[in-house]
Amino acid sequence: MRMNSLYAMNAGEGPQSYFLNSSYQGGVIDVAKPIIEEEINTKLDIKNLPNRFCIADFGCSTGHNSFPAIQIITQAINQKYKSPKITSGTLEFSVFFNDAITNDFGTLFRSLPPNIRYHAKAVPGDFHGRLLQEYSLHFAYSSWSLHWLSTVPEAVADSSSPAWNKGEILYTRDRKLVCDAYLDQYEKDIGSFLESRAVEIVSGGLMTLLVPAVPDFWNPEREYTVTSDISYLLGSCLVDMAKKGRFNEAKVDSFNLPYYFPTPEQLKAILSKNQSFTTERFEIINDPGKHTLASVNARAAFFRAIHERLLSNHFGSDIMDELFELYMKKLEASPVFKNPDNDKTIVILAVLKRKLI
Amino acid sequence: MRMNSLYAMNAGEGPQSYFLNSSYQGGVIDVAKPIIEEEINTKLDIKNLPNRFCIADFGCSTGHNSFPAIQIITQAINQKYKSPKITSGTLEFSVFFNDAITNDFGTLFRSLPPNIRYHAKAVPGDFHGRLLQEYSLHFAYSSWSLHWLSTVPEAVADSSSPAWNKGEILYTRDRKLVCDAYLDQYEKDIGSFLESRAVEIVSGGLMTLLVPAVPDFWNPEREYTVTSDISYLLGSCLVDMAKKGRFNEAKVDSFNLPYYFPTPEQLKAILSKNQSFTTERFEIINDPGKHTLASVNARAAFFRAIHERLLSNHFGSDIMDELFELYMKKLEASPVFKNPDNDKTIVILAVLKRKLI
Repeated sequence: MRMNSLYAMNAGEGPQSYFLNSSYQGGVIDVAKPIIEEEINTKLDIKNLPNRFCIADFGCSTGHNSFPAIQIITQAINQKYKSPKITSGTLEFSVFFNDAITNDFGTLFRSLPPNIRYHAKAVPGDFHGRLLQEYSLHFAYSSWSLHWLSTVPEAVADSSSPAWNKGEILYTRDRKLVCDAYLDQYEKDIGSFLESRAVEIVSGGLMTLLVPAVPDFWNPEREYTVTSDISYLLGSCLVDMAKKGRFNEAKVDSFNLPYYFPTPEQLKAILSKNQSFTTERFEIINDPGKHTLASVNARAAFFRAIHERLLSNHFGSDIMDELFELYMKKLEASPVFKNPDNDKTIVILAVLKRKLI
Repeated sequence: MRMNSLYAMNAGEGPQSYFLNSSYQGGVIDVAKPIIEEEINTKLDIKNLPNRFCIADFGCSTGHNSFPAIQIITQAINQKYKSPKITSGTLEFSVFFNDAITNDFGTLFRSLPPNIRYHAKAVPGDFHGRLLQEYSLHFAYSSWSLHWLSTVPEAVADSSSPAWNKGEILYTRDRKLVCDAYLDQYEKDIGSFLESRAVEIVSGGLMTLLVPAVPDFWNPEREYTVTSDISYLLGSCLVDMAKKGRFNEAKVDSFNLPYYFPTPEQLKAILSKNQSFTTERFEIINDPGKHTLASVNARAAFFRAIHERLLSNHFGSDIMDELFELYMKKLEASPVFKNPDNDKTIVILAVLKRKLI
C-alpha cells in the first residue's frame, strides 16, 4: 500500500468521522471569502472564456469544508463574467474533487448540496503529481492539505542518520536536523505540487492556497501550535503506552508523521522560487476555526479523525481508544494546551497566478 | 431522492455485492474484444491527437467489469498510434468512470488494478444528461447499462391509463400498451444519451455500446430471457407475498422496474434516427456470461445485487431474504428457467462514430 493511501481522513459521517470533526479546518473560509472574491474579480484573467469553467479542490476529503469554498468561487466567477458582453447567462462549471485514492468519495457525492450549479467529479491520487489534463484548469483551490508530505523524510526514519527522530513522532524545534529534513521534504513536495499544477492551469488562471503554518516564534510556556500539540502531547502518550508494554518502544522510534507546517518566511521563499506562478497575495490568517475545539473531547476527535488510518496501520487499531483517552487526560491536565486561545497556529492565504505560457 | 439514485448496484465486495455477482454481465467483453480492437484500428479518426486521450465508461458500477474493457481499449489505441510519426511513446490516458451518484466509487478506486496507465476519475450522475466537457471525449464505452430508463414510463404507473401495469413489475409481451410505453421511454432515453454524448465526443471519436437485448422471438415454453425471468418469476414472488399479507397488493401494482431490453430491430431504428453518429458496426452477441449462473443461488444473488436498492426502497429491506428464497424455490421448480442454456437474452455490440462537426 502506498503511504499516500493512508492519508485519507476518517470516512463516513459517524462520531469519529472527519465529516463531524473538522470544524477547525473549515473555519478559515469565512475569513478568506472577501479576499478570494477580490482576487477573482481583479486578477483572474482567462483569455478565451471556455464553455465550461474548470475548478479543482486538491485535498477535499468528504467535501463539507469544500462545498462552501466552491460556492464562493463559482459565485465570484459568475459575478465577474456576468456582463452580457462576456457571457450570455450563467457559466457552466466542472469541479474536480481530489484526495487520496482511499478517500471516502461516496460520502462526498452523497453530501453534495442540493441545486449545485456544477458537475462534480472525483479525481483520486497524490496531488504532488499530475492529475488533470494539460491546460484544462482555470481555478485551483487547496485548503488545509499542502502540509501533507508525499513521504516521511528518509533521514528521520533512519537509525544510522544524525537526523534520526528517535522517540518522537514529529519534528520538534529542539532537533534542528530533524526540522531541516522535514523542511527539505516540504520544499520538494510544494515544488512538485506547483510543477504539476503549472501544466494543468491555463495562462491567467488562479490558485488559492490555504496553508496551515506556524509563526516564527511562540512561547512554549504559554502557547502552542497544532504541531507542538501533536509532537509533545500525542507523542508522549505513545511513549507512555510503549513503556507500559502495549507495544515495543522501537515502534515509536520508527513512526513519524508525514506533514510539515512552515513559517510564513519559509513558504514565501519556496513560492518565490517557482517560475510558473506569480504570488499575487500572501496573507496570514488567524484561523477562527480553532475556537470550535472547546472541549478535550472535541480536540481528541479532531486529531483522531485525521490520524487514525496512519496510527492504526502502524500501531494497530486496538490501541486507538486507549491512546486518545490518555491524550484527553494529558490535555485536561495541561493549562497551556487545554485552552484553544493559546493555539498560535496560523493559516497562510496565498493567491498564485499562472504566468503567460 | 431522485429515482436514478436508486439505480446503483449493491455496494462493497460482500456476498450480496454486485462486485461478486456480475459475472453474467462481464462475460461479454471477451467476445467483444476483437471487434473493439478492429474498430479502433480502422475507424477511430482523431484529427489532432491530444496530449491526453479521454475515455469514459457510462455505467461502470464498482468497476471490475469495466477495468478489463478499459485495458482492451487503451491497448488498442496505443497500438494504433504507436507509429513514431504519431506519438513518441505511450499516450497519456484519462478515464472517466460514470455511474449514479450513490454508486460505490470507493470500491471502484480501491479495486483499480495495479500499474494501470491511466488517470482514473469518477463522474457521478445520470448519463441521459451532460456529464463531460464539450468535445473533450475521444472514446466512450457503455456495457450492460443503456437498458436503464431515466424513469418508469408514466402511463404504466397510472391506474387511470389503459397502459396501467397492474399486478406486474415489468412489461410482458402479452400487454402491448405496456410494452409500447416502455419502448417509447427507451427511445427517448437512448436519444438523450446520444444527444449528450454528441456534445462531449470529438469528431471522429468512437462509442462502443454493449446493449442487453432480446431476440424477436423466443418460445416461452422452452426458453426465457432475463426480462421474462424477472417479470414472470420475480414478479410472481411479490404477488404471492402480497397474498400472504406481507404487504398490500397495491404495493405490487405501484411498482415497475425502470429498464427495457429492445429487439435488435428496435435498437437499430433508434440509432439510425440520430443525426450526430454513424453506426459503424451492429452485431448480435450471445453473451457467454450467462453460463456463469449455473446455480439457483448464483442467479438469485445476481438479481439481488442489481435490484436490491429499488426493491428495498419500495417494499422495505426486511422482505428481501424471503423474496429471494421464494424466487430460488420457484426457479428450482421450473425446468425452463432453471437451465441457463434456455436463456435467450442477447447483447448488441454497436460501434458509433461521431460525425464531423
